[in-house]
Amino acid sequence: MSKTEIKSGANALVETLANCGVTHCFANPGTSEMHLVKALDNEPRIKSVLCLFEGVATGAADGFARMSGTPAMTLLHLGPGYGNALANIHNAMRAYSPMINVIGDHATYHRYLDAPLTSDIETLVKPHSSYIGAVETPAIAGDVAIKAYSKTISQAASPVSIILPADSAWGNDGIAHEKPAVPTSANVGEKIIKTVVDAVKSAKSPALLVGGDALYDENTIAILGAISEYGIRVLIDTFPARQRRGKNIFHPDKMLYFAEMAVEDLQKHDLLVLAGTQSPVAFFAYPNTPSYLVPEATKVIELSSRQQNTKDAIKSLANLLGLNAVKADHEVAPIPLPDGKINAYKIGKILARHLPNDAIISDDAVTCGLPIYTETRNANTHDWLFLTGGAIGQGLSLAIGAQMACPGRRTFALLGDGASMYNIQALWTMVREKLPIITFIFANRSYKILNIEMERTGAGAVGETAREMLSLETPSLDFVKIAEGMGMRAESVSACDELDNVLEHALTLNEPILIEICL
Amino acid sequence: MSKTEIKSGANALVETLANCGVTHCFANPGTSEMHLVKALDNEPRIKSVLCLFEGVATGAADGFARMSGTPAMTLLHLGPGYGNALANIHNAMRAYSPMINVIGDHATYHRYLDAPLTSDIETLVKPHSSYIGAVETPAIAGDVAIKAYSKTISQAASPVSIILPADSAWGNDGIAHEKPAVPTSANVGEKIIKTVVDAVKSAKSPALLVGGDALYDENTIAILGAISEYGIRVLIDTFPARQRRGKNIFHPDKMLYFAEMAVEDLQKHDLLVLAGTQSPVAFFAYPNTPSYLVPEATKVIELSSRQQNTKDAIKSLANLLGLNAVKADHEVAPIPLPDGKINAYKIGKILARHLPNDAIISDDAVTCGLPIYTETRNANTHDWLFLTGGAIGQGLSLAIGAQMACPGRRTFALLGDGASMYNIQALWTMVREKLPIITFIFANRSYKILNIEMERTGAGAVGETAREMLSLETPSLDFVKIAEGMGMRAESVSACDELDNVLEHALTLNEPILIEICL
Repeated sequence: MSKTEIKSGANALVETLANCGVTHCFANPGTSEMHLVKALDNEPRIKSVLCLFEGVATGAADGFARMSGTPAMTLLHLGPGYGNALANIHNAMRAYSPMINVIGDHATYHRYLDAPLTSDIETLVKPHSSYIGAVETPAIAGDVAIKAYSKTISQAASPVSIILPADSAWGNDGIAHEKPAVPTSANVGEKIIKTVVDAVKSAKSPALLVGGDALYDENTIAILGAISEYGIRVLIDTFPARQRRGKNIFHPDKMLYFAEMAVEDLQKHDLLVLAGTQSPVAFFAYPNTPSYLVPEATKVIELSSRQQNTKDAIKSLANLLGLNAVKADHEVAPIPLPDGKINAYKIGKILARHLPNDAIISDDAVTCGLPIYTETRNANTHDWLFLTGGAIGQGLSLAIGAQMACPGRRTFALLGDGASMYNIQALWTMVREKLPIITFIFANRSYKILNIEMERTGAGAVGETAREMLSLETPSLDFVKIAEGMGMRAESVSACDELDNVLEHALTLNEPILIEICL
Repeated sequence: MSKTEIKSGANALVETLANCGVTHCFANPGTSEMHLVKALDNEPRIKSVLCLFEGVATGAADGFARMSGTPAMTLLHLGPGYGNALANIHNAMRAYSPMINVIGDHATYHRYLDAPLTSDIETLVKPHSSYIGAVETPAIAGDVAIKAYSKTISQAASPVSIILPADSAWGNDGIAHEKPAVPTSANVGEKIIKTVVDAVKSAKSPALLVGGDALYDENTIAILGAISEYGIRVLIDTFPARQRRGKNIFHPDKMLYFAEMAVEDLQKHDLLVLAGTQSPVAFFAYPNTPSYLVPEATKVIELSSRQQNTKDAIKSLANLLGLNAVKADHEVAPIPLPDGKINAYKIGKILARHLPNDAIISDDAVTCGLPIYTETRNANTHDWLFLTGGAIGQGLSLAIGAQMACPGRRTFALLGDGASMYNIQALWTMVREKLPIITFIFANRSYKILNIEMERTGAGAVGETAREMLSLETPSLDFVKIAEGMGMRAESVSACDELDNVLEHALTLNEPILIEICL
């Protein structure tokens, strides 16, 4: 259709997003979105994916964005639908993922009647939207779509919200627009690079803390390897959006999660250079523990902000230091099958034995995450996706989007049993879309992290009520039945060799499978 | 403990709420709420109930409030936890349910560091809170609790939010307060009642539309029966919070859901009197259909607003008309077991055959709801709870709260298969708390309401994409396995006699059961 042809607001919006290169819509529609659904019917360039809960839609859009660099659209049903979607929008915001959330609203003239589903959507979306496009007439639908797209892909990328009243969707003055020019991120000036070079040269023990999309990129990580060999310790954020890693890739250290340990670790350094990230802070506050993790004696300088081209800045820094990228070449012995009682470290080893090249790992494993991360450092090359915003429960949904962005690759979702129950409905979409995702559920029958945190926050001894609030026993969740109930193949294992066999077999299948690991 | 004893902010908050008569806390805690969990440990008057998802907590609090008239507290984890809870807070707001949502936040000094879980909670809660209490110091925790309680139980009741930063929870200047005086709702003036009497006497065909807690009360409904016999047609809101009904209770008509039918229905009346509710409006807007449902020729006057004492106003109206309450005495023949292919009407008949006296029904049945409602009108006396705010998925959670408020009664949760998957995690809490709730899942394998609405919104013929967005086939959900996976007994039925047998047996058990009804 030509640019100036007049169409419905819903058609104009959807066609414009398709023109911008949007290829996926993760949806949970309601009555007010029927014209949007119809517009998606008319747009063969966008694949619509039904999710049984809105959090699945936004988690999937985040995973899709992290692996493709491209925003997906979501389709949400008024304020309550946005509420259901919010936790994973929060995580996406913290991952700097582009995402276009389209929230259907009542017709403009219907809102003032205060019908049951009415709420103040514009206020609701404010904290988690870098742009809010209110489509108050069909005529501006295409224009709003362009603005939303441009904002969501700008540096630093972030979710945007489009509020589409029903009469703007069905009204007939819409105009579709073409894809705008894509902004590029600003390069860091030479003077700044030189300042950093001078600072690291005069520091006794400099460290470089890296975050953002520099970690997506194997070449940049190879340069970081050279920087590390030069004598600058390379650290990365505790929960970056994505990290390229594996046996022939440089292994940077990670900022430690627990504040007191992180502070102690940073005390070794008199200089901390920030690249594409902010000064490290504690995940939570604790009585008598600092929230700001950099010791007073450590000087902090910025190489690049999150909004700048960090990959280029790191390259320039290495150039000025006279360094070339180092291709890591780790001696990796075959990993023997562990035996004895299964635990997270052994699960990591078993995963490392079988991890296919170019796999994707969606980590929502809470207490099991770090041991498995550690044990897979020398596995085949893969991308590790972290829980960036701390809103647990995203892992299944994130895996859906990652798998859809990378159809030829294998995605693994690693989840704690507690975390898995937030968006458990995601299993259904995996089956419907025939996504060959392998899900591990770590069934320790508790919110184990909270048992640790209870003590750390100084709340004191755990009494009867507190114990019940942190335990998932009584009744025990049977994840095999839950998965089968959503049409998914599933197995339960409790020994190392069982997991090894089930995993080996799972990789021969081209369908999703859930493996419950009883710890 | 005495009123003036100094304690932690968390202890002061919890103790004050217990002093106010709060007996239940529906919780999904995280690290920032550990001191709150500990405070609940110290407070034997409040029972804590763990929910695997925050929407379950707020849905349960709504059900508890509708059946007890008392607010429960919820415990939510920062902005994302509030997002997960929001849809059911929305429904509670539309049910005028009191509810105290306590949202844990980062320590006050930690917020400005922009840690991963930071978000602007105060903005997020604004659209769904009639009071926002920010506990910026432990010293005000008890005072904020009193303000929150007073606001949530005032007419018209509504959810309130308390934002509790971690340092205000663990800090040690808290003071617990005693229960304040409970406000009573204002009576309607005599002059207004007389005006209404004059208006109905001079009207040709007057109707009275009733909403709110007048419908909770058997005596008031008996008076409405007399008003109806006098010649004033009595209508009730389409989705009131709760309706007392059954074989010896007057059956008012219900406002029709579909706008065009409602408008036609109201055209019979030259006068519409509002009691405890607002002028009726369409649930959604549709092209070429009015949103405001009252015809131009129908005069609207108000007997009482939602904030006033509607029960008293109805009584005064009847007095002035010289009417006494009429105890309905319906001739009810035994209901034979239906045969043939099962459908919603037959399910209603089967339910009516077995419904125990004083049962509670949580209706989230979407397209199956009205037929079952119709067929149970002459069943044993019961309370019917509707989906007030249109955010589907609340039915299981609502049943939890209702059952906990009324331990001696039997609660039924009626859910469409689509609706059930939003908060399916609620099944686990039913098992854990040994709640003898009987859940019906109507498995028609589609968002059936949307198939109807697609046509009504004029979006046109359903294409391939739209069909997929509205269908729950592929894969089929197996609700027996899903329930068993959460430790619940479950059965699947597809014929009338099967359902009849399973239901009869279920009522002999003192535990939750899920019955999947394949349609």
